[in-house]
Amino acid sequence: MATTITRTRRRGRQTISFELTPAVVAAAAVVGPKEGQGPLGDYFDVVKEDDLLGEKSWERAEARMLTEACRLALRKAGHSLKDVDYLVAGDLLNQITSSSFVARELKLPFLGIFGACSTFAEGMAVGSMMIDGGYATSLLVGVSSHHCTAERQFRFPTEFGNQPPPSAQWTVTGAGAVLMAAQGDGPAITMATIGRVTDPGLKDPLNLGAAMAPAAADTILRHFEDTGRTPEDYDLIVTGDLADVGKQITADLLERKGLDVAGRLFDCGSAIYEPSQGVESGASGCGCSAAVFSGYLMQGMLGGRYRRLLLVCTGALFSPTSYQQGESIPGIAHAVALETQDAPG
Amino acid sequence: MATTITRTRRRGRQTISFELTPAVVAAAAVVGPKEGQGPLGDYFDVVKEDDLLGEKSWERAEARMLTEACRLALRKAGHSLKDVDYLVAGDLLNQITSSSFVARELKLPFLGIFGACSTFAEGMAVGSMMIDGGYATSLLVGVSSHHCTAERQFRFPTEFGNQPPPSAQWTVTGAGAVLMAAQGDGPAITMATIGRVTDPGLKDPLNLGAAMAPAAADTILRHFEDTGRTPEDYDLIVTGDLADVGKQITADLLERKGLDVAGRLFDCGSAIYEPSQGVESGASGCGCSAAVFSGYLMQGMLGGRYRRLLLVCTGALFSPTSYQQGESIPGIAHAVALETQDAPG
Repeated sequence: MATTITRTRRRGRQTISFELTPAVVAAAAVVGPKEGQGPLGDYFDVVKEDDLLGEKSWERAEARMLTEACRLALRKAGHSLKDVDYLVAGDLLNQITSSSFVARELKLPFLGIFGACSTFAEGMAVGSMMIDGGYATSLLVGVSSHHCTAERQFRFPTEFGNQPPPSAQWTVTGAGAVLMAAQGDGPAITMATIGRVTDPGLKDPLNLGAAMAPAAADTILRHFEDTGRTPEDYDLIVTGDLADVGKQITADLLERKGLDVAGRLFDCGSAIYEPSQGVESGASGCGCSAAVFSGYLMQGMLGGRYRRLLLVCTGALFSPTSYQQGESIPGIAHAVALETQDAPG
Repeated sequence: MATTITRTRRRGRQTISFELTPAVVAAAAVVGPKEGQGPLGDYFDVVKEDDLLGEKSWERAEARMLTEACRLALRKAGHSLKDVDYLVAGDLLNQITSSSFVARELKLPFLGIFGACSTFAEGMAVGSMMIDGGYATSLLVGVSSHHCTAERQFRFPTEFGNQPPPSAQWTVTGAGAVLMAAQGDGPAITMATIGRVTDPGLKDPLNLGAAMAPAAADTILRHFEDTGRTPEDYDLIVTGDLADVGKQITADLLERKGLDVAGRLFDCGSAIYEPSQGVESGASGCGCSAAVFSGYLMQGMLGGRYRRLLLVCTGALFSPTSYQQGESIPGIAHAVALETQDAPG
């Protein structure tokens, strides 16, 4: 594949475009029981019967979900591990141990990334550069989260039974993995917009949607400014896990800037659970956008329902130490544009 | 800079080469007082008088060191923040909050990475792909660690005064940042070898050098196998923070595989402190290789003492949760080849 190309891939300040348009040749989503009972349950490849997966810890269960999602994405594409050049992965756990343990098991050269719940789009952006630039012919991007590992790490012991406020979000137990390749059928990644950190000064780890909303709006606005595209160019503008509170703030912020996204804004964190599931504002966790894309949205693209998506994953960049020390919670959002082969040029 | 190039950049299984050879146009190292008192003290740009830097927490002090290193690297190159396309950064703190807070302050599009103490080389590898691939014209790679933030996060409360065994390592209080660009004077990054996770099955967080040594040996061997180079092609093979115990194990492992690196192996973790400084086996922390490269080694390249270095940063991929749950500690190592303009072809 020694093709000749030209070099500049920058479009505006934060957006890059890909000439080889790396293809998402397969995606797989593995989720927990609560996610399986939600409105998108039928779209996930595997729904586990319990959160432990028969493992001795939730942390082990999370790593196993991610391993399974990676292996399943490979199997769907008819590829094996020896066809894959790299694993690009991240999660929410301290020192991203879930991803590291998956990399140990898969024995792939490994780049660990961290963007909190923006990690899935960050991974797809980095992976796209690696393929488009000729550094990889195929690679896996995998991301996971687990309600029980996140809850006790970020907030309270799970046994404590903390009563969350209406702005709180329920961390998704789920993993999503995509196999990206220089050649192959599947939606193409045509552009990526790398986000800046924005900080509205909020300090409440039970209202992360509000902390991330300005970052989502900033990256969406920047994407359209850099590319000259308009919301009408996309069937959906998909945000990662703003949930109901953050989604509304993002819509308001965009409207104030004159960007009309009415009817096109889809938030994975608002979509994955029913209100009756007791999740307050909705879902969070980097497994949320990873699983919803790898399950529901990928099938929508393959089935022709969506031809162009802008996937904007949002992350809240904090730790228990940082908020206990009184630091505010900054947000970040990274975007990737996904297009089917028959999308308008 | 729309030059025409060919596409394939892969050399062997894990190594990639760069046609544009991204240049390290400036580097800066900011360290704490103990590092300033060590044998490399004179080579660091800034030596702080105390570990707190006048901040109210060690975590704030760490973020400030990294911010200063980034700004100083820019200043040395005569660049300003508006010339920089991205910040690629990581650190050891949970959810890499030091890096996120620096990204917030610098207002640059931000890619967060995590490779434990391999992060500096991971960042330079990712940054090289971004520049060589045309996705960036210049970017900052910054990495930090802090003895006091790491000690209480990974091991014991600092006030506890834990007595470390002889295999233990002292986390470096320091930050290193490099400004990389498509054009400019300075050592070029010509190749990168992305590491695999290897796990010797060790479970002692006070013996990380031994846990990382197989990863270091694996990546070094892979680099020479992929590229056809030999140790003689490099003035030094620089490892990140194996310290005395891990360095010896790595040398033994390489010797058993028939690779003679005698006289060329330089470990930042063995070099940054004197034995009399009470650091047991030596130093650790991702700030170790970042500061030693950005200070001592970069000056050695600019001064003509070194024409070719293989920088192999090593990371131990664990968290307190993982080792308390009885998981072993896997290691990873990423390598980048740095060459001055007059290095033999």
